[in-house]
Amino acid sequence: MATTTETSETYEQFIEHVRQLHYVSDAGSVLQWDQQVMMPEGGTPARAKQSSALSTLHHDLLTDDQLGEWLDELEAADLDAEEAAVVREVRRDHERAVRVSSDLVERISEASSNALPVWEEAKAEDDFEMYADTLEEMVQLRREYAAAIDPDRDPYEVLFEEYEPYLGIDTAEDVLTTLRDELVPLIDDIADSDVTLADPFSGTYDDDTQHALVEDALATLGYDWDHGRLDTAPHPFSTGTQFDARVTTRFKPDDPMDAVGSTIHEFGHATYTLGLPREQYGTPLGDNRDLSVHESQSRFWENHVGRSRPFWDHFAETANDHLGIDASPREFYEAANTVHPDNLIRVEADELTYHMHIVLRFEIERDLIRGDLAVEDVPQVWNEKMEEYLGVRPETDAEGCLQDIHWTNGAIGYFPTYTLGSVLAAQLDHHLRADVGDVDTLVRDGDFDDIHDWLTENVHRHGARYETDDLVREATGESVSADHFLAYADEKYRDLYDC
Amino acid sequence: MATTTETSETYEQFIEHVRQLHYVSDAGSVLQWDQQVMMPEGGTPARAKQSSALSTLHHDLLTDDQLGEWLDELEAADLDAEEAAVVREVRRDHERAVRVSSDLVERISEASSNALPVWEEAKAEDDFEMYADTLEEMVQLRREYAAAIDPDRDPYEVLFEEYEPYLGIDTAEDVLTTLRDELVPLIDDIADSDVTLADPFSGTYDDDTQHALVEDALATLGYDWDHGRLDTAPHPFSTGTQFDARVTTRFKPDDPMDAVGSTIHEFGHATYTLGLPREQYGTPLGDNRDLSVHESQSRFWENHVGRSRPFWDHFAETANDHLGIDASPREFYEAANTVHPDNLIRVEADELTYHMHIVLRFEIERDLIRGDLAVEDVPQVWNEKMEEYLGVRPETDAEGCLQDIHWTNGAIGYFPTYTLGSVLAAQLDHHLRADVGDVDTLVRDGDFDDIHDWLTENVHRHGARYETDDLVREATGESVSADHFLAYADEKYRDLYDC
Repeated sequence: MATTTETSETYEQFIEHVRQLHYVSDAGSVLQWDQQVMMPEGGTPARAKQSSALSTLHHDLLTDDQLGEWLDELEAADLDAEEAAVVREVRRDHERAVRVSSDLVERISEASSNALPVWEEAKAEDDFEMYADTLEEMVQLRREYAAAIDPDRDPYEVLFEEYEPYLGIDTAEDVLTTLRDELVPLIDDIADSDVTLADPFSGTYDDDTQHALVEDALATLGYDWDHGRLDTAPHPFSTGTQFDARVTTRFKPDDPMDAVGSTIHEFGHATYTLGLPREQYGTPLGDNRDLSVHESQSRFWENHVGRSRPFWDHFAETANDHLGIDASPREFYEAANTVHPDNLIRVEADELTYHMHIVLRFEIERDLIRGDLAVEDVPQVWNEKMEEYLGVRPETDAEGCLQDIHWTNGAIGYFPTYTLGSVLAAQLDHHLRADVGDVDTLVRDGDFDDIHDWLTENVHRHGARYETDDLVREATGESVSADHFLAYADEKYRDLYDC
Repeated sequence: MATTTETSETYEQFIEHVRQLHYVSDAGSVLQWDQQVMMPEGGTPARAKQSSALSTLHHDLLTDDQLGEWLDELEAADLDAEEAAVVREVRRDHERAVRVSSDLVERISEASSNALPVWEEAKAEDDFEMYADTLEEMVQLRREYAAAIDPDRDPYEVLFEEYEPYLGIDTAEDVLTTLRDELVPLIDDIADSDVTLADPFSGTYDDDTQHALVEDALATLGYDWDHGRLDTAPHPFSTGTQFDARVTTRFKPDDPMDAVGSTIHEFGHATYTLGLPREQYGTPLGDNRDLSVHESQSRFWENHVGRSRPFWDHFAETANDHLGIDASPREFYEAANTVHPDNLIRVEADELTYHMHIVLRFEIERDLIRGDLAVEDVPQVWNEKMEEYLGVRPETDAEGCLQDIHWTNGAIGYFPTYTLGSVLAAQLDHHLRADVGDVDTLVRDGDFDDIHDWLTENVHRHGARYETDDLVREATGESVSADHFLAYADEKYRDLYDC
């Protein structure tokens, strides 16, 4: 606790203000969940007003001069480590909010609203020309945004830090480059392999069947239904607090493994949220670290559990019962890990080729923001990189550079966190196994408690107390590195494809 | 529009502030809907914080000094009728919020939180003694609340105006007393009648069956699914905006008519909300008038449509299909209108005896607040009045004065609005028939458009522009009166019971 009575009083007022900020933000998340999962479509105009009112109030609380004064006072005081961490986190949010004018925030918000139908039509018509000016405007706005936060630094770095503030663009670049260099030959070998992995699914599976299947998957993994729920949404996501972290999924009639993987992925996000300390709800100590760490939790469960042989040893019988088939654990395992180098679409990519899609987007968005690439050249560069990294060239921009919504939303600098999450997941998995022992046997027995405990102990319970790289070192004793992911991928996929 | 540029500018700023207030309030309603319908129970602590944060922000916006200054300026300006109505409504809310200290609001909120488990236990144990101090505290707090708003007026009147500001306690008292005097002999005659009405239901009906049934009832009546949805909740309610007004219901296995009636009741509330002008969303002109008028819409649809013979002429076949029975329209009609004078529980009461439950509660709560009745005497007075009005005496307080949650919640002065709603519904029904013509044939044909149009034209579209009594006069050409309800009840029930 802070040492003087005066500092202590300031800290109490400050932390109460911070909690209010979080509560308003979380109320906004409830509105968004409802909008995507429950709201009838006609509710949109009113919901837009409600959400915007909460955003405005949140922004007012965050940029409040009084908050700035408290931060000044507390930064000069003698705080303990936890208090100092809280002050660090709030200072960062406060500073970014203060530096970016409301006018710019509004212009970005408006531009991305206007961009959405343009992007949708351009994608439907496969007409990049139609979209080029819109992308150019968003790139300019985001450069302006980065300059408002810090005119002296690389604008892409500043944007990346919006999503992952404490890992460094150099680390990200290093990881992505290493993955590109190491995975391309592995994917080549797989493409050349004669092995064909099993596909035990034929016909289609209705929504009720798939819902019951993924509900059982969640129950098996230990999802806490008293603090969560499962629904469907057009784009699966997870949201909530440590008291109520919800999962959404969707069903493709001919591909039940898609729903299983997607549901387990969102489950991973939810377990992170549910593992945050409850007594710290509303403060950074009770809030998650940023996107890389969040994604490491979803990818850990999706890939290192849900795509593992031991999981299917445990879950195959249940899955067979639901789907009315008779596939072996090995067949489910193979179906979950089939590599498709010729796939063009990121969200349909397998665990390996996925990262090539990210590397490509990272390189393009970085160069766009830095001014090293012109918008008009994006389609050509995209296609060349697809050919270079995956040996396949999109025939249309709809299947190429128009496929993702991120840039249209203004989310530039976001893509790398997906791959960083995978890399971190593999690193955590490696150290979990060193600490806990025979994880495969636990998973095969359906006993996930030790895994949950390890992740809670080493990651979740810290909230945002540590900066990302410190958190990773606390949990694993080393900095973020691509090595564990590469070793895991190499072993698993060379075995599967006998190459 | 306001006449001078300056006034016009003030009005613009003022109305923008008012809209923000409404948006925050509506965001809070989304959180409450979610809590009662979707939220896993473990989410409660976080939700309490989020809701409370929104309440605080709403209160701050409502009591803002700047808002008071705008109101002063606008009240002195030359406004048109609609602007003046907006200023009147906001002034009232602002004034009440300013006069009641945050401390008192918090003490009432805390007292009612604390009262809940005490009431629950007292009811479970049938032990009024256990609850007496709690009720006494709430009565004192509510008297203090009334005195804060206006120390010179009857405190019960002030409390009643919390729920129905523009009808007058005299009107309420007059209506309730008339109903008591006129309905007691009618109920006596029904109790003495030899007629037994049909009960075509046997066995139980599962939730899915009842859900499909009430969904069809909503579709038949013209519920707009693009702007609403149907879910279940422990205590059915309706909530939302003119863009998204939702209905909840619940199912009793052996009583499908309960779900039908309750669903149509909430549908009535939702149609009112959906009929409010969309372009006025966020202002009093796009907001509903108070509880009596809201309840008139629910009771109109529940009683004057849903309990009518023409409705069952239309809907019996659908109901039979769902329930797997073969009841005639007449049997459904009788089942929907069976009077049970010996029923002790308000929420299970029929259309007629219901009002005796309200009269009793009104007399008791009025006398408690005015200091004319001591808390310790409530059970005895309750039981005496039950005997006097309905000829039946509760054997326990659990089935007597402990049955309702309202007083525990601090809602004193609320009960009369239920009966005022019924009376208003009958009055509207009378004038609808005079204006539209053969309503029975329309209902029998399942053609509800003209009814919706009449209600929208005469009630919904005005929002809160008119004070309640003016709205009633606009719609019906006369003040609120019990006469139409009494004529309707007398004709319908003397015919059904041949008395």
